[in-house]
Amino acid sequence: MSHFDIEISEVGPRDGLQSISTIMPTADKIAWINALAAAGIPEVEVGSFVPAKVLPQLADTAQLVEHAQQIKGLAIAVLVPNLRGAQNAVALKPTKMSIPFSCSETHSLRNVKRDHQQMLEEVRNIAALVKTLPKESRPKFEGGLATAFGCSLEGHVSEDKVVSLAVALMEAGCDEVGLSDTTGSGNPAQVKRLIKRVWEAIGKENLTGVHLHNTRGQGLANALAAIDTGITTIDSSMGGIGGCPAAPGASGNIVTEDLVFMLESMGLKTGVNFDKLFEARALLAKLLPNEALYGFTPLSGLPKNFQYAK
Amino acid sequence: MSHFDIEISEVGPRDGLQSISTIMPTADKIAWINALAAAGIPEVEVGSFVPAKVLPQLADTAQLVEHAQQIKGLAIAVLVPNLRGAQNAVALKPTKMSIPFSCSETHSLRNVKRDHQQMLEEVRNIAALVKTLPKESRPKFEGGLATAFGCSLEGHVSEDKVVSLAVALMEAGCDEVGLSDTTGSGNPAQVKRLIKRVWEAIGKENLTGVHLHNTRGQGLANALAAIDTGITTIDSSMGGIGGCPAAPGASGNIVTEDLVFMLESMGLKTGVNFDKLFEARALLAKLLPNEALYGFTPLSGLPKNFQYAK
Repeated sequence: MSHFDIEISEVGPRDGLQSISTIMPTADKIAWINALAAAGIPEVEVGSFVPAKVLPQLADTAQLVEHAQQIKGLAIAVLVPNLRGAQNAVALKPTKMSIPFSCSETHSLRNVKRDHQQMLEEVRNIAALVKTLPKESRPKFEGGLATAFGCSLEGHVSEDKVVSLAVALMEAGCDEVGLSDTTGSGNPAQVKRLIKRVWEAIGKENLTGVHLHNTRGQGLANALAAIDTGITTIDSSMGGIGGCPAAPGASGNIVTEDLVFMLESMGLKTGVNFDKLFEARALLAKLLPNEALYGFTPLSGLPKNFQYAK
Repeated sequence: MSHFDIEISEVGPRDGLQSISTIMPTADKIAWINALAAAGIPEVEVGSFVPAKVLPQLADTAQLVEHAQQIKGLAIAVLVPNLRGAQNAVALKPTKMSIPFSCSETHSLRNVKRDHQQMLEEVRNIAALVKTLPKESRPKFEGGLATAFGCSLEGHVSEDKVVSLAVALMEAGCDEVGLSDTTGSGNPAQVKRLIKRVWEAIGKENLTGVHLHNTRGQGLANALAAIDTGITTIDSSMGGIGGCPAAPGASGNIVTEDLVFMLESMGLKTGVNFDKLFEARALLAKLLPNEALYGFTPLSGLPKNFQYAK
């Protein structure tokens, strides 16, 4: 943890852009990442080490990691789908490297053509790779438990299963796990319950972050539930980009701008400056002229006499 | 309280339409109110007893109360700005009658040209009127503490002031008070704190409901905070209509559809049926073709295997 109360991990450049077909040029991504960092965002997920033919939008991830290394103090997160991706990632020394692991085996098979046992084997191989690295250049290796709050294919996902997969991921060598509401199905009661259950199983220090989607408008309420429980890292995306193509109009990730407003208003320091955050959003709007940007705080502005958390 | 865990008070026909200049014909309002009631919404705020020249949109409030009286089991809420409005209202025997009382005196003077002392005198006169009515036809008389979480004119509104005004309203003869985040400035920590402070001052039974706006996207998070604290009635509007004309694009009330999804998912019964709620929304979209409807659950649909609260 940093010197902030809550750490915002901006996932727009990865999870946001991933669902947008028009490819953003690398120079534009760099300008956006610079603007995010200038606004005080402490961590940015810059991309994913997937084959370019699978996700052409993220083909420049290596260049973005290299660029982001030049930004002082910025934590760099990347996604890796498998060992091959992890090999490419670790060469560039990101701060955090996450592998998505779908709690719904149906979703896992559909998405990465691997069942749980095959995925755990992949995690073990990546963990072994990480252990060969000198300590100072090891990324934190996170197992991201996707569809932890429900799956659009399987429907209900049992909490017992999520807990046992969290244990399995830690045993396979992850440094920590994260909980992802991939389908935006979660509710605040479930968020609180599942975090506590995972903590009981693997320890509080091994689950510090959640990744929430706003598919049904529950994003900030779920983030509040997570924070009330004691979670300290929240993923979000500028303008809430990252909507599911299968649900037109349904926004994607929770909106960074509104999340920061909630946290700072509540007295929780994020390190983010609103003027610069709104500048970054204006830049993004210019770079993505055909995409809807969500979030209300940028439209209404801050309340009169607004005060940042002290 | 009803046999539901949380009572939704749909304020769209009043607070929603109030900010929309195109007048909805009475027959359309009746069709919408019928659809809301058919979806299981237990209470609808049908209008406000303001002079027709001030708010032409709400000129048919008396007719709507008379119509709603025919709908079995539906609680009917109305707004009254003053004694004259209350006299007109009580003749029609609504279930609940609220007078907005702005905690910001600047806002009160600007909005209704009355300072706090003048407003309290009005409240005393209305309370005296209510006491003359036979018990079975007395509406519940609520003092709605507007701008309780901040004012666009005064900025910060002191919690001490809100608490003392809650006490003053009860002393002036209100049956209960409500807290309104008129400007959508509130945050979850403030919501919890203020509810508890008002409860300490006037008793838990005298503050059961909150009215929240989604101006900065905090609506559901603030509703969650209120519910976690023990509030049992939440105002909301279908499609989140009721945006502030001063902040284009910033939605108004919290969205009924997403609120019901949150509550039912959490295991809190609302009595609302989603199929019929979405039908009512489709009707509203047809009746207001030029207005943006907010909310995500109607777009994404319910999660696979969704279960209502039991």
